[in-house]
Amino acid sequence: MTGRPDGLEGEPNGERGDGPRVVALGGGHGLYASLSALRRVTTELTAVVTVADDGGSSGRLRRELGVVPPGDLRMALAALCGDDEWGRTWSEVVQHRFRSEGELHGHAVGNLLIVALWEKLGDTVAGLDWLGRLLGAHGRVLPMCSVPLDIVAEVELDGEVSTVRGQVACALTPGRVRAVSLVPEEPPACPEAVRAVLDADWVVFGPGSWFTSVLPHLKVPELAEALHATRARRLVTLNLAPQPGETDDFSPQQHLEVLRRHAPALEIDVVLADRGVVEEREELEKAVTELGGELVLADVAAPDGSPRHDPRRLASVLEEIFRKKR
Amino acid sequence: MTGRPDGLEGEPNGERGDGPRVVALGGGHGLYASLSALRRVTTELTAVVTVADDGGSSGRLRRELGVVPPGDLRMALAALCGDDEWGRTWSEVVQHRFRSEGELHGHAVGNLLIVALWEKLGDTVAGLDWLGRLLGAHGRVLPMCSVPLDIVAEVELDGEVSTVRGQVACALTPGRVRAVSLVPEEPPACPEAVRAVLDADWVVFGPGSWFTSVLPHLKVPELAEALHATRARRLVTLNLAPQPGETDDFSPQQHLEVLRRHAPALEIDVVLADRGVVEEREELEKAVTELGGELVLADVAAPDGSPRHDPRRLASVLEEIFRKKR
Repeated sequence: MTGRPDGLEGEPNGERGDGPRVVALGGGHGLYASLSALRRVTTELTAVVTVADDGGSSGRLRRELGVVPPGDLRMALAALCGDDEWGRTWSEVVQHRFRSEGELHGHAVGNLLIVALWEKLGDTVAGLDWLGRLLGAHGRVLPMCSVPLDIVAEVELDGEVSTVRGQVACALTPGRVRAVSLVPEEPPACPEAVRAVLDADWVVFGPGSWFTSVLPHLKVPELAEALHATRARRLVTLNLAPQPGETDDFSPQQHLEVLRRHAPALEIDVVLADRGVVEEREELEKAVTELGGELVLADVAAPDGSPRHDPRRLASVLEEIFRKKR
Repeated sequence: MTGRPDGLEGEPNGERGDGPRVVALGGGHGLYASLSALRRVTTELTAVVTVADDGGSSGRLRRELGVVPPGDLRMALAALCGDDEWGRTWSEVVQHRFRSEGELHGHAVGNLLIVALWEKLGDTVAGLDWLGRLLGAHGRVLPMCSVPLDIVAEVELDGEVSTVRGQVACALTPGRVRAVSLVPEEPPACPEAVRAVLDADWVVFGPGSWFTSVLPHLKVPELAEALHATRARRLVTLNLAPQPGETDDFSPQQHLEVLRRHAPALEIDVVLADRGVVEEREELEKAVTELGGELVLADVAAPDGSPRHDPRRLASVLEEIFRKKR
């Protein structure tokens, strides 16, 4: 067994490690995939996570205890766990969900542990750093802001536009999301997340639920400012499949158009898409050019054909992009 | 910050540390007090813990998930936590209880973590060892057996004898407990606990709830056999005050008489009592002699007059006893 790390890896102002300083933005399974790849590319990794989930274990915890929904933060930390028996075991425990006929059913253990750390330490970032230390995490996980948020989405169905509040409602309401906003409307950014974006060499958007995990970062004013002001290069990893209820029938270029509508002045350096899912290459290239960037097509999907990114393939492509564009 | 320990301290067949090999038997706050003292005296410390609790967070967990009640195990591990910031912080988190109007109210975080480790690892002892590693525990914590138990008590009130099942019911039923038994009646002992008792230099009974935390060990056949067969010296630390519902008006010598009734052949080498609580010294000395032992009177209560043992005072007296009787 290796020892517990003595300090926080990926902590700002710490010693420089190997690889570029990368900030990954997103939430849920998409961010998990992104981090599973990026941890192979750099030791200087920070995840900045959406905190608008209102379903499942996270939703129950925010309603019962008034906390930031911890689920996406937990999943990001688990993705960064140490490679040894210690890191893997605690990561599995943290990801474990109780199954019963009773009150604990469905709660993820790591969610409960994060909330306990918050209640005990009285500090959102410090609590996450402590769980990171427990896991021997290869990087740091930060919330995009330190108050729980709600997503409000404009949804269009058969020409009718309605407003839907909450991540669960967004996912369940049929139709196409046209735009999202947040409640509270201008939430305070997590200062450490703003700092990480400003100090980064690369900022990576997606993959993930486009409206509820990837775009919300652009609706937090100080974070949006930092994302515009940073000298980091900006990369978008496109999804492998549209998401029902959010982006039904969206083409890759439509994902980029939506991004542009939410942040018109944001320049993107690289858009990475899986070769297999791009049907209209010229249209996609046109959308990428309008964002000021370059399209990279590569095989980054899992070889079994399922719509998820393969961590090794994604890592290898990202590493090459980071090296070439240094 | 010091590093995470690389191995399990107090693990059998590990390297010998400092001090005698001590096994502490009990549960709840009494065992916590005993361990808080013993950790100052030896690094070779094993707690063997009652698993018959059916109240509070533990009771809910055993009913919802069918597990051994984890609360007394958690408390024992917390008592042994590392001295550094790491050990103290995780100990506080593990002891933290949620407070709400909802389903998590009253659950201790460490109880949930222990249950998750059990579900994940499928092994009661391994799960506790992992939590011990997290805490940097100075010693090992074992359950007396690996199935949840119920205490059945014969309670006498105004000459009437009734039978009461469950630790909570025992504590709430007015009257005096005369005897306890277990359901299931002959539960299998935890083999590691049996081994620890056989290998010990000292076995320490109490302080603690006499009928529901201290005596149940003698009702687990293999553990009772080991407690009789071991070449370890046996020490009883008497309580500082009777416990309502269990030992109302019990004198110190009555505690020993009850112990004798539950294990007639068990020889006790030392009985340690606080000087301030012994009113009938001759009667107590007589009861100690009948057990084959020697009475030690010392100031071991907290100086503020509350009925709890002071860890430093208790440690200093135990150290002297262990040295003299080596």
